[in-house]
Order: sequence, then structure tokens, then C-alpha cells
Amino acid sequence: MNLLNRELLQVVIDNGLQNDLLRGLFGLEKENVRVDPDGKLALTPHPKAFGSKTENPYIQTDFSESQIEMITPALDSIEATYHFMEALHDIVSVELKGEYLWPSSNPPMLPEEKEIPIARMSDPIADSYRGVLADKYGRKRQLLSGIHYNFSFDEKFLTRLYAIQEQHKDYKEFKDAIYFKVTRNLLRYRWLLIYLTGASPVFDNTYMEKCVRLADSHDNKSYYFPIMNSLRNSVCGYRNEKSYYVSFNSANEYVHDLNRLIQQNELLSVKEFYSPIRLKTSKGINLCQELVEDGVAYLELRFIDINPLHKIGISKEMMHFIHLFILFMVFKADESFDEEDQRIANINQDQMIMEGIKGYLNEPEYSQFTMEEMALAFIEKMKEMVQLLFPGNEDYGQILDGEKQKILHAELNVASIVKTEIHQSSYLTYHLEKAKKYARQSSQNGYRFAGYEDLELSTQLLLKAAVKRGIRFKLVDREENFVLLSQGNHREYVKQATKTSLDSYSTVLIMENKVVTKDVLKQHGIRVPSGKAFQSLEEAMFAYETYRGTPIVIKPKSTNFGLGITIFNQEYSREEMEKAFRIAFTHDGTVLLEEFMTGREYRFLVMGDEVVGILHRVPANVVGDGIHTIEQLVHTKNKDPLRGKGYKTPLEKIQLGEAEEMFLKNHGMSWNDRPPAGKIIYLRENSNISTGGDSIDLTDEIPDSYKELAIQSAKAAGAAICGVDMMIDSIEEEAGDTNYSIIELNFNPAIHIHCYPFTGKNRRADEKILDLLFG
Amino acid sequence: MNLLNRELLQVVIDNGLQNDLLRGLFGLEKENVRVDPDGKLALTPHPKAFGSKTENPYIQTDFSESQIEMITPALDSIEATYHFMEALHDIVSVELKGEYLWPSSNPPMLPEEKEIPIARMSDPIADSYRGVLADKYGRKRQLLSGIHYNFSFDEKFLTRLYAIQEQHKDYKEFKDAIYFKVTRNLLRYRWLLIYLTGASPVFDNTYMEKCVRLADSHDNKSYYFPIMNSLRNSVCGYRNEKSYYVSFNSANEYVHDLNRLIQQNELLSVKEFYSPIRLKTSKGINLCQELVEDGVAYLELRFIDINPLHKIGISKEMMHFIHLFILFMVFKADESFDEEDQRIANINQDQMIMEGIKGYLNEPEYSQFTMEEMALAFIEKMKEMVQLLFPGNEDYGQILDGEKQKILHAELNVASIVKTEIHQSSYLTYHLEKAKKYARQSSQNGYRFAGYEDLELSTQLLLKAAVKRGIRFKLVDREENFVLLSQGNHREYVKQATKTSLDSYSTVLIMENKVVTKDVLKQHGIRVPSGKAFQSLEEAMFAYETYRGTPIVIKPKSTNFGLGITIFNQEYSREEMEKAFRIAFTHDGTVLLEEFMTGREYRFLVMGDEVVGILHRVPANVVGDGIHTIEQLVHTKNKDPLRGKGYKTPLEKIQLGEAEEMFLKNHGMSWNDRPPAGKIIYLRENSNISTGGDSIDLTDEIPDSYKELAIQSAKAAGAAICGVDMMIDSIEEEAGDTNYSIIELNFNPAIHIHCYPFTGKNRRADEKILDLLFG
Repeated sequence: MNLLNRELLQVVIDNGLQNDLLRGLFGLEKENVRVDPDGKLALTPHPKAFGSKTENPYIQTDFSESQIEMITPALDSIEATYHFMEALHDIVSVELKGEYLWPSSNPPMLPEEKEIPIARMSDPIADSYRGVLADKYGRKRQLLSGIHYNFSFDEKFLTRLYAIQEQHKDYKEFKDAIYFKVTRNLLRYRWLLIYLTGASPVFDNTYMEKCVRLADSHDNKSYYFPIMNSLRNSVCGYRNEKSYYVSFNSANEYVHDLNRLIQQNELLSVKEFYSPIRLKTSKGINLCQELVEDGVAYLELRFIDINPLHKIGISKEMMHFIHLFILFMVFKADESFDEEDQRIANINQDQMIMEGIKGYLNEPEYSQFTMEEMALAFIEKMKEMVQLLFPGNEDYGQILDGEKQKILHAELNVASIVKTEIHQSSYLTYHLEKAKKYARQSSQNGYRFAGYEDLELSTQLLLKAAVKRGIRFKLVDREENFVLLSQGNHREYVKQATKTSLDSYSTVLIMENKVVTKDVLKQHGIRVPSGKAFQSLEEAMFAYETYRGTPIVIKPKSTNFGLGITIFNQEYSREEMEKAFRIAFTHDGTVLLEEFMTGREYRFLVMGDEVVGILHRVPANVVGDGIHTIEQLVHTKNKDPLRGKGYKTPLEKIQLGEAEEMFLKNHGMSWNDRPPAGKIIYLRENSNISTGGDSIDLTDEIPDSYKELAIQSAKAAGAAICGVDMMIDSIEEEAGDTNYSIIELNFNPAIHIHCYPFTGKNRRADEKILDLLFG
Repeated sequence: MNLLNRELLQVVIDNGLQNDLLRGLFGLEKENVRVDPDGKLALTPHPKAFGSKTENPYIQTDFSESQIEMITPALDSIEATYHFMEALHDIVSVELKGEYLWPSSNPPMLPEEKEIPIARMSDPIADSYRGVLADKYGRKRQLLSGIHYNFSFDEKFLTRLYAIQEQHKDYKEFKDAIYFKVTRNLLRYRWLLIYLTGASPVFDNTYMEKCVRLADSHDNKSYYFPIMNSLRNSVCGYRNEKSYYVSFNSANEYVHDLNRLIQQNELLSVKEFYSPIRLKTSKGINLCQELVEDGVAYLELRFIDINPLHKIGISKEMMHFIHLFILFMVFKADESFDEEDQRIANINQDQMIMEGIKGYLNEPEYSQFTMEEMALAFIEKMKEMVQLLFPGNEDYGQILDGEKQKILHAELNVASIVKTEIHQSSYLTYHLEKAKKYARQSSQNGYRFAGYEDLELSTQLLLKAAVKRGIRFKLVDREENFVLLSQGNHREYVKQATKTSLDSYSTVLIMENKVVTKDVLKQHGIRVPSGKAFQSLEEAMFAYETYRGTPIVIKPKSTNFGLGITIFNQEYSREEMEKAFRIAFTHDGTVLLEEFMTGREYRFLVMGDEVVGILHRVPANVVGDGIHTIEQLVHTKNKDPLRGKGYKTPLEKIQLGEAEEMFLKNHGMSWNDRPPAGKIIYLRENSNISTGGDSIDLTDEIPDSYKELAIQSAKAAGAAICGVDMMIDSIEEEAGDTNYSIIELNFNPAIHIHCYPFTGKNRRADEKILDLLFG
């Protein structure tokens, strides 16, 4: 066997194309059936939260109303694609209140055929198409779910290779030649990929009766084919009723043959040609005319089962293996793939599914080899390819070795593991437990957008909310959390989640400037700390006579970190005041003298015409239980998944540092004290979240009169999104003329603190921004 | 004479109230008649540029259509008020194309009585009121113009003094008592102020016949009263037909007496009571009911003539003197001011006007004193007051001495100077020459808002344009050029002239970020330099293979000052590229590699849907004349009033520095070379205005196809106000697909460069902003 085209490999190496070769666009599409807590097919409608079934580009329904389809965009790395699918899985799971994503390609407990709900589309053509398919293939069969793996080569790789090779009529022909070659090879050797990815060896007795009759019952409910690893890819899976053969030599021949089948009424449309690999155009759909004109844009591998061992149904390693396998197909010597070859490929697939890989290959030329021998030979050649192309890369070697073990030891294969584990439990229990475990994991990921953890939490939340309702996003400047959201023709640029088109520039400038903010609020009759701004120490000191005796704050005009601020609570001398001014002037050319406000500070998040959330922050603290030491209580409190380090979580871990120790000491305590049950022990003076403080959601506790003031304040500045910091004497009383004051308006308020507070509800500030932006 | 109430003075001093006493609000109102270039009353309508005659708070018409009234807001210093009036004078003068502001209280050459146009108001009541006045007082008399000086004490001074004195029923009563006392004293001794401010001793023979008959003719056209200094304050001036006496004891009595006069049909309304001093309420109009309820808010001194010796009709020194005189009236011993006292005050005024101040006072108790003696005694007491209150202040002493000289030497008085100077010329010629000189001065102040020179030029221009059309402004943060513009209920906050509510925050963020800007423009099919952004040197160096051979620019993502930028025009090595990247990375964590664009750079100022102006900048240069040296040519070019230092002018002076000298040397020249006529000698490489570069307005020269691209670029970012920097290969050609590219979008484009370019028209970008903001 001449497996590797070394000449081509050498061209790639000689021209330094390895990195370009490795690049590409990846995409995953995955279906999961929704089930109720008992593992029965959920008969509820597709959740409204996911918006339009047809227009949400990320979350749709497939054949059945109960079958959710998750679609990643085309991304430039396997990691990004994997994580995006994880995020989609998380987003969908969290929204399915009381339902779960069934983690298998095989259906859960099914009702009668006619009770399986077909997805209700708004388009009558789409409805009737689904009706025809239901009749033709059966609704139960339609519920078989799987993963599609999309791949396209990097455009630069193709254009550079084209330029080097100079043997093709034009670039399109060259590109098609590569994609068709890869497709032929993939189709021929798909039995190996199905062997490694198959994960649906067992099914429930509510599945199609004819398949139940074919299979063995190992208990009263679960059915196994002998050695079968993928029901979905088997005769009982989702296939065309008979085998159709089309040419894979070129786009022209391929399209010609497909059109013939449609004209002969064998197929309803191109879509009904259920080839394990589809050749796709840039429009995403495999339209014949476009394929001829524009050529192949990407490949869709459609035979991958949902792997119940992984939350998202596929491992990152398998994604890499498939990628390497595709690259291998580029360098594998070309072979014919005529009707007979295609028939043999089908036989190989069915044989592998029923008998494993110990049997001999059906190609006359390879009939002396078992599938196992061929598979091992492939792995060796792939390793050789990897070593030649990417000599430094050890990960690929490990991935290839991992798959080799599955070839050598059938019991290590995913399907075998799943089968064994079901044996120890039951089909239903096994998958249901996994479904619930994965749902818990998704829920714990609540505030995290997998693969986008480098973004600010507020932006991660906003993007998750956008994806959920089908608003597309693009990171226009990832470092700056600058995103483009779009839905149809409606485009919105958003930076750091709350910097949007909803606010005018002048509104932001008003909020950014403390002097102007106060001026605007005062003009609207809203209470602000009275005060003055000074540009020189001399001018500032004139204020002594006027303010002596009243509690004041002296602060630089533009600092937010508490630097340069002096608070005079009690009587103060001229000298003390002068010192405070001197300090403040070292930070800013303008210094503010403000009336010191009493009461507690609350953050009102105003969006549009409403207060979305109200938070109060308290310093880092633990509550005694009469048993544990303060140190132990801190450790326990820090276990909350909401707490982390470095602002990657909604709350920060309480530190066991000097500041905390000193604070305890000043209050006559130490780490080893055991405070009585219910006693709150504070560990810091300041209430910043960054030093372990708690955020207490008080949205429902604070009287409407204060909310009204917060809304008025935002409106005074013309703000659509605004964090209003209000001092309130007592939230037990309604707002009066003198028992509150507005300290600051923030034009870029964090939203995650209102979504994941220490105590209180998720106020869905992320959703609210989208409501405002996309109406 | 017990002139000074030392007890009160001591209270002020003991309580440290001197500074508060000195504070206050000042306002000026001034009328000027418009004349044609021959000095004839202009019969044209009030210029449309000034917006509504009634709603423009700064520029209105008075009685006649030809009589412009300029009104400053109440400002907290004499300097600010003086400058504001100067600015108003400038704004009005510049707008009067071919007409001039007549710099005298006495009218210019008048047509027949009935041809004098009464101001056409939109309000029929206002029209009919003017009609009645015209009949009652004569149109010619109505054209007498003057200055009103408004003053109120600082509120803090009043409240503190009230708190100390504890002898008044309530604060309002206390406040009224002070204002009424000052009013009584001012009315009694107004003859002195009229003596010092009177400036209308001569008038044209087209004035009212009865006055012409009364006066002497010194030539065929000009008429003088004997020694008279103020026609306007004389019997031939604007007065009630008979003397009305009302009580000045309290608001109640004052209002009672005025109401009686109205009921007796002696007066049409309170407004017709032409007292030399009016007591005003906070609503600005002297409504009786409000005066009783809210008390006096400020005083209006109405007898001040327009001083032809000063552009704006009054000197800063005189404004200070009047202020000191008012303060003196606070501390002067109280005297009765009953009907007899008022009659004597009127007699004193008329006597002073006809005979000067050598005569005796008409008060029985002061009948042994000449007015001159009394005047000198006042000055001495004022000096004493000033020394007691403000011991360090020398300016006040000088001001008082200056006025003393006018008392001692009648020929130094304004009226005497005016009379003498007219004698050497003629009434008409004298004033017309002054009018034209002042108009030239105003025109040279074009880009400057007097009193606001600390603001950026763009902001000064915007505010001048706002004032012109009657949009009110308030500096909410002067240091930051942050203003509030308002017209009726419509309020707009504007920072640095072009940061407005017209642009959304996200639009600004798009323009602020070069990566995002390019992304947005590219998506809209607009040509931008192709390129990439890198976060690490390693990643950046991958680009070498791709870009070697093409001209590129390597630059930090966010620098505008040219720092860290390397341009590779010719072949460059890997090492050179690495060095350039290293330099750029020292400035920013993200570095851009961009295609190097050819052509010249142009700044398109886009506002709304149009290109308001296009500028091209060229390096500092002079044009030879075959006679002068380069150094001499620089000195000559620097004399342009548009050139200054430190960005206070639209252009900067060309420097005779090392950089320029080196540049000349490198081109084989020196300062002493005499370039041939017409030869352009450049003095710098860079074209920045800040280093003496020229701005060339090319708005009318550049093809529309580029303008269209600039507008599309702004629209792509969603910008209403945007500076589009475009590279154009040749402005002789229409825009194609590859002969231009957009380098940058600026969200805060300077506007003054388009209003005052080195060559080209004023593109009125200031007006355009207001059109967009206020529609």
C-alpha cells in the first residue's frame, strides 16, 4: 500500500506551508433531544427564550420540536469551536427548567410514533417537508441525533498551494479537486472514523419495533446489536431508503448525478441525499448551482455520534483526530471511487458496525488485510505525516496513540465503555444520570462563556444572552471587550457590555465628569452633596470659614480609587484642611469639596425606564456557627464557585492577609477565634468586592420612591444605561427631601454583579441590555 | 457732612465680609443704532442671523428696527461682563455686512420722523405698544441709545450680613432695605455719575427740531448745548413728559405709588416709568406684584451714555467706578428722599447738564457747596472706604484718582473730549470713522470670544455662533470646554465643540479604536489600508513572509503623535522589521501593520449629511519675492493676525528654530538667502499646524466622489460629526476603487481650522453644529 503522497508533503514543507495547512475553519452542529426528569421525550414546545427557531443561528430545532440543534459559527481553531459548543450546551441546559439534554444519539423513552411532536415552523413549506420526512422515514428514526463536523481549509493555504502547483485550470478547479479528493478518501475509510466515534450501541425498547426485533434484549428495556457501536450509522439508523451512487470526481459530475436522482423522484431535494459527507458551498446549503459556480467551501462530516462520556458529546481530542484524519486524506494516495468502490465502502461500514474491525476489508485489492491492520497502518502513516509536518508537536502523537489503543483494545472504544457502563445500570438511568450531571456542570458555568473567559464577566454574560436569543456576535476588538451584535440588518457595536449606542456621547461625558453630573442633577431637583470645585489651594482655603464645623469630603475631581480623598467627620483645623487640599491637588488640578453624606451606599442599575437591580456591598465577612474558627469559616465561604481570584468570578475570595489579620486584631479577635452562631465577623473596613466583600441584592426591598429617584437621575443625564450610586439614610423610610443623595452616575456599570450577587436573584441585566438594543 | 456710616463698615470688616461684599452679579445692556456707510440710519431689517428678535437673549431690537440691543447675562465679575459685551459687539459688527454700529447715544443722520422704522415684532401687543410710544415721545427721541448697568449684591454677602445684624423682620425686608437705600442715594447723587459718564454733547441737525432750535450750531450740521455733556439725560433726552414722584422707602410704598400712576392713566405700565434707576425682580421685569412678594433682585442704572472713545461704549474702569459708587452708597449715611428731595435731584441733574459742576447744589442743607466740592468730597470718602475695606488694592485708588481728574479738569471729561474732537472734524465724520475702526477691530477678533480666550478656539467659535442666534450657554466645566447650550426647553451638553449628543457612545468608541474603525469601513466597502493587529512580537514576525516587498507602516494601536511609527517604503530585512515592531510594542500592547498608502492626506469635516470643509495641510513655508531674505519673509508671514503662539490662534507662527535651520541647511539654503519671486521655500518636513504649517481649504476643489466617500465613511461608523482623514492619489481624478483610502475617523475634529484656514473661505462649521443640534 502506498498510503502517503510524499511528493505533496515535500511541497508543503519546502514552501513553509505547514502552519497555513494547520489553519482552517471549524464548526460543530449538534442535536440533543430534550427529556423530562424521568427520561421521557419532552413534549413541551421549544423554549421561547431561544427566539425564532429558524432565525437563531446558534440554537434551532431539528426535525422534532423536542430536538434542539446547536450550531457553532465557523471558528479558526478546534479549541474555540469546542468551547463554543460547550457554551451553547451550557446556555441551552440552563434555560431548560426541569428538562435535560439527552446525552446520546439514540432516543430516550419515546411515546407512540404519532405523539412525537414534529417541529412547528412558521413556514408552511418547512412544515410540509417535515411531514413528508416523518411519513417516509418514521418519526422515531428522525429522533436519532448526532454531531456534524464542518471543516474548511485556510484560504491562504489553498491560494499559496495553488500558486506553487500551477497545474490547475483555475483556482476553483484546484480547490474543488482537493475537497473532492478528501471527500472520496473520507467516504472510503469512514468505517474507521465511525469505529472510533460510534457511541450509540444500546437503545430503548420504545425505539422502532423492527429494530427491537432485530436486536438482543439484555434486560427488559435496553437493546444491543451484536458488537454494534452506532445504531445511528447502522441499517436501523438514518439513511436513504436505498443506496444512491453519485460521482465524486468533480462538482459538475456530482451535481449532474444529484439532479438526475431528483428528476427521477428518488430524492425530494439535494438535502435528502444523506451522504455521510456533504460538500457545502459558502452559502452553507448544498445548492447545486452554487456548487458548480463557486465550488466547495467546506466539508460536513455527518456520521459522528454523541459521546455520552463528554458533556458536549465530543472530546477535544477527537476533534483534533478528525482534523488530522482529514489532513491525512489530503496526502493519501488518490484512489478511484466509482459506484463499486462506494458500494464496498458501504459494506465495510455495515460490516464494521456489526462485527467490529477484526474482519477483512471488502476491497479486492486489500482483501488480504483486516480492518484492524489497515487502521493501524493508517495511524502509523498519520504519525509519520505529523512528524514530518509538525516535528515539535507532541500533542498530536499522544492523540494518535490514544486512538491506536482503541483499535488495539476494543474494550477501550467509546461504544464499548458505554455498553459496559449501561450493563451495570440501565439505558435510561445511565443516560439520565449523565444528563443531570452535565446540567449541573452547565449551571455552575452560569456566568462563564466557555472559550471567552478572557473577556470581562459582563461581556461574557451579554454574549451568552445574545447567543441564547440568536443575536450573532463578533469580537471586533477582543482585548477591549468590543463586540458587534447583529440580528438581520440590525447591527450594534457594544464595548464592555454597557457602552452602547443607547447613550449619546454627551450623556457619557456628563456622567464622566463629577462636576457636570452634580450640576445636571441639581438642576433637576435631585439631591447631591453640596460642594465646590477649586483650581488652586489659595482659592480652596477661602472655603474654610464657610465650611468649618460641617462634615466634608475633600477629593480630587477625577479619581475613582479612593486616592487623595480625605473625610472630615469631626471638627477640623485650618491646617488639617490645608493638608487635605494639598494631598488632593497632587492627584488632580481640580479638587472638590463636598458635604459628607450620611447613610449607606446603594448601587441602582438603571436601564431604560426601570431599575433592573439594586445592590448593597458589605465588607468581607463570615458568620459564626459556634463550632469553626474564623479561618475555617473563611475557607468554607471561599468554596463558593462564585468566588475566585482576579475578577474572573462575580465575587472574590476572602484573603487571609495582613489587612484582615490587623482588622481582626483591632477588634480584639484572631483567626483562631470561634464566633458564636449567627454572629457576623467583618474582616475589612472597605466593602469592595475586590477584597472579598459581599454583594447583597436588595432590588425587592428598597422602596419605589428611591427607584424613582434613580430613574430620574439617569434621565437627567439622558442616560439609557446608568449605575446610580445613592446614599440612603434608612431604607425603612420612603425617600424624602433630605434623607438621600446621589453620589455618582456611572456610564459603564458592571452587570455581572446584579446577575450573580452573593445573596439574591439573578436580575438578568444582560437580557435587559439586549431588550433595549434589539427591542 | 456725615458721609460714611463707619459703624456698618466696621461690621463688614469685623466679620470678614469684604470679599463677599465685593462679589455680585453684573450685567450690561446696550443699544446701538445701525448706520449705512454714509452714516445714515440703516433702514434695512434686523439681520436674520440673530434669530428671533424677542427670543434671542443676547441680541434683540429695541424701539426701532434699526436699533440693536445687546444684553450680557448676569456675570460674576466686571471683567467677564465687559468682555461679554465686547464679544456681543464683535458678533453683531461682523454680521452687519456694509453697515456699522453707531458709536454714540445720539442718533446718526435721520430721515423724516415717519420714515424711521419701528421694530416689527411678531407680537401685535408689542407692535401696538411701540406705536403708542412713537406717537407720545417721537420716533427720533426713541433712537437715543444708551447703556444699562445691572448690579446685584452677592447672595452670600446679604445672608451673612442679615444674620449678623439681626434687626430686620425677615431676609426679604433686609434685602429690600439695602437696595432701596442704595437706590435713594444713587438717585440723589446721580448728577455726579452722569457728569462722569455723559458722552453725548453734540447731535446732528436731523434730530428733533425743537432741540435743534434750543441749541447752538457750531457748523452747519452739529448742535451743542452749552456745556452739556448728555443730550440723552437732558430735557431733549428720553424722559417721562412730566416728573412723577413715587416713594423709594419700601417695595410696598413704591409699588403702591406706581399703581396709582397707572390707574390715573399717567403711565401705560410700570415699564413707562423712566426712572434713571429701576428696581428689578428676579424675573428681570419690574412687575409690581413680584416686587412686593419676592423683593428686589437687582438694580438697573439706566442713565449711562455710549462712550464713543471705547469700542463697546464703556470702559472697564468706569464699570469699576460705578460699582464702587454703588458700594459707597451702601455705606453713605442715609438721607430722606421724599418728593421734594426727588425734585431737587432732578434740578441738580439738569443744572449739571447745562452748566457743569461749578454751580452750587440745590439741597438747602448743602447749598453752601458747589457740585465740584461735593464730588471731590465723595471721591475722598470713596478712597477712604476702599482703603478700609481693601487695603492692598491699588487699582481702585487709581480708578478713583482718574475720575477725580475729570472733576478737577472739565476738559478731561469724556463729553469734553468728544466735543473737542468733533470740533476738529464733524459730528458725522467723527462717529463714522470710529464706527468703522471699531468694526475692523471686531473683525480681527473674528475667532476670539472676548473673555473666553482660555477656551479652545473651536469652543469659542461655537459659543459665538450660539450667542449670535440666541442660544444661551453656560460653562459647566470651563477647564474641559464643557458647555450647556439651551434654547427654550431644548438643552444640549457639548464638550470641546464637537462632542455632542448627535453621536452615540458606540459611534465614538468605533472611531476611537483604529482596529474597529477599519473593520467597520471595510465591511461597508470603503478602502482602508489593509493590515493586521498583533499582540506579540513573535506573532507579528510571522507577517514578514507575507508582507516583505510591500511598503508598510508599523505603528502602535493607540498613538496619535507619531510616536513609535516606522514606515518601510523600500525593501526591508527581517531584522529591520523586528526592530520596528519592538519600538512599536514599547508604546502599546497591540501593534498594527498597515499597507503604506500613497497620495496626499486631506481632512474632510463631515457634519450630518454633508462635507462642511476639506483641508490640506502643508509644512511651514514662505514664498520668495526676489527681494527679502527667508528670515524676513518668515517675519512678514508671522504678522498675520491668524498666527499666534500656544494654540490661541487658528495658525501658529513659523519658528526660526534649529529644526527649521537644519531643514534649510539640508536643502542647501540659509536664513539669509533671498529666494526668487514665487518660489516656495519649505521650512519643515511635517505639515502640522502646530509647527507653522498652512491649512489650505480645498472644499470647492475636490471632486464630489471623494466627498461621497467621506460621508459614507462617517455613516458607516454612525457618526454625525466626524473628521475623515483620506489619502488621495490625485484630486484631479474622480475617486476610483484604488486611488484613495481612509486613514482615520476622528470623533472630535477641530472646527476652527475650517473656519479660519490660511487660504480659503470660512466654512462656518460652528453654525453647522448648531443647525444639527437645534435644527
